[in-house]
Amino acid sequence: MGTPPEGIEAEVIEAASFEELAAKGEAVRGKIVLWNRRMLPDSTMDGYGAVSPLRTKGPSEAAKLGALASLVRSLGTADFRLPHTGALRYTDDVPHIPAAAVAAEDAERLHRLLARGEPVRVRLRMTPRMLEDARSANVIAELRGREKPEEVVVLGAHLDSWDVGCGAVDDGAGVAIVMETMRLLRALDLRPRRTLRAVLFTNEENGLAGGRAYARDHAGELSRHAAAIEVDSGAGRPLGARVTAGPGAVDALKEILRPLASLDAAAVEAGGGGADISAMKAAGVPQIGLRQDTYRYFDWHHTEADTLDKVDPALLARNVAAFAILAYGVADAETPLAPVPEAERKD
Amino acid sequence: MGTPPEGIEAEVIEAASFEELAAKGEAVRGKIVLWNRRMLPDSTMDGYGAVSPLRTKGPSEAAKLGALASLVRSLGTADFRLPHTGALRYTDDVPHIPAAAVAAEDAERLHRLLARGEPVRVRLRMTPRMLEDARSANVIAELRGREKPEEVVVLGAHLDSWDVGCGAVDDGAGVAIVMETMRLLRALDLRPRRTLRAVLFTNEENGLAGGRAYARDHAGELSRHAAAIEVDSGAGRPLGARVTAGPGAVDALKEILRPLASLDAAAVEAGGGGADISAMKAAGVPQIGLRQDTYRYFDWHHTEADTLDKVDPALLARNVAAFAILAYGVADAETPLAPVPEAERKD
Repeated sequence: MGTPPEGIEAEVIEAASFEELAAKGEAVRGKIVLWNRRMLPDSTMDGYGAVSPLRTKGPSEAAKLGALASLVRSLGTADFRLPHTGALRYTDDVPHIPAAAVAAEDAERLHRLLARGEPVRVRLRMTPRMLEDARSANVIAELRGREKPEEVVVLGAHLDSWDVGCGAVDDGAGVAIVMETMRLLRALDLRPRRTLRAVLFTNEENGLAGGRAYARDHAGELSRHAAAIEVDSGAGRPLGARVTAGPGAVDALKEILRPLASLDAAAVEAGGGGADISAMKAAGVPQIGLRQDTYRYFDWHHTEADTLDKVDPALLARNVAAFAILAYGVADAETPLAPVPEAERKD
Repeated sequence: MGTPPEGIEAEVIEAASFEELAAKGEAVRGKIVLWNRRMLPDSTMDGYGAVSPLRTKGPSEAAKLGALASLVRSLGTADFRLPHTGALRYTDDVPHIPAAAVAAEDAERLHRLLARGEPVRVRLRMTPRMLEDARSANVIAELRGREKPEEVVVLGAHLDSWDVGCGAVDDGAGVAIVMETMRLLRALDLRPRRTLRAVLFTNEENGLAGGRAYARDHAGELSRHAAAIEVDSGAGRPLGARVTAGPGAVDALKEILRPLASLDAAAVEAGGGGADISAMKAAGVPQIGLRQDTYRYFDWHHTEADTLDKVDPALLARNVAAFAILAYGVADAETPLAPVPEAERKD
């Protein structure tokens, strides 16, 4: 979303939450909103989850109150003046105002200036444009099941990345883990009961078109999808898995991951899965995500610093070990996981 | 130094030292040189000193061998895709070829591509221009000495910074330390024998014009300058002092810094001083620098990340304590430090 060539210049008003901005009411009209909330590092996705709505929904929340533009303090945990990019979702009933991220340091500066009690004005000049969609493709490979080849377990990661870095941790690492898992099982001649289907999805970051196209094109086959497993949290050490499925799924996965206890990678949590595979949830396909330590992930995620040097080969290998056991175990189980209950199939 | 509008496109050739490039001889002609040597963090300036000639002299070393342009792996110790800026010095007898810094991650990528053994081509398009000098000023304040007001001890730091960050650690912290030292001594009514003269120099980064102008404008007074003390290594914890002066100076400073032993800030080294005050060395003025821990300094130095949040107020206060004791002690000493010996007055 661009701005007029002369830019937008207005006073800044700051808030750390939707509630705090709403309480300012009419004072927001005609201003540029700065969503300023610090993200703390942790080993789960919780820190990100706590602040990411400010980026994805903040612009429309600001527009509801008459704001001219929306700035968000960069999500992320590093302090190297790096703006963080990522998706936003406008709601239709309010103006689609320009939105941008500022580095943490610049949000802090605006905060200090505002703390003096005097008006602080910002001029925004933004050049982004929305282009037409271009043709792309998912990349698919299979290791056919030895007993039930028509039943499928999808192993998913995504090929695209935000253009600021090269996407080594989001999600190049995941792509490498899926590919190496397939190679490893093949090299060891380990063919599970069901078919393992590696799907390297396109366009996760900017609309989930790859995941949606897969669910649409394979709609007739989804009732025979025993599960979909995604890896999309970088290359920090594996912690276990998360699962959204029917009764008994957590216990079943705990049994499958038991060999990973010595790597401290056997913890199973209920809920979640992955973005690319989420379009299959409506058909009840069990959703599984590899849990990975994200303590440093958000130092790099969606920034210029997401480059190959951030991937530790030893931890990448450990992720492959965990993912291979998870994938083989799910695809080889005598009893498949129960489908996602009807009541949980809508997001 | 800009490049033609269409840019310069050529093969890259890599070297980690002047010797390594020179050994490549004719292979350098017509190429773009990548100076690629990793800088390691340490608490002294040694790590920087080991690689900074690649930036300052690398372009002319490359031009000697017929290179078209010179790239340097960013000096610095962080891995956040930040290019590092800084001065270079062309020699007159070879072409002044374009020169730029690339982030460590990009140097690593070029290295990996070159390691495949195939030619790697880079296109450079650079827009920098050298503008005319503009008028600026040093900022000077004095605390008059109680016994020998005509004898001066300069307390120096510099006001300018590279434009990528705001210069909080280089050298905003130094400016704050000098100003707070003056305020503190005044508030405590501690007036030393000699005059303390705070000089906040302009244009350290890009030619030392402020330091040179001071030495020129005060040439008649330099014989009565008892010392010049600089602080220009950020806001890491103080370690002690370095000194370039006549016989006995190291021992004299050790005595002055004795009260700082409990802060581990009493270590004195021979040699060095500071860039701004260096123009006074030719007149024999003793050169003193506050030594500071630079372990993290080069994560930020000369990058976008040199912002105020990098300055720890508690460490800043500790630097003021050390600098105040150093400044007061030098200005109050019964016997002044011996001047820089004639043989050491040229750089």
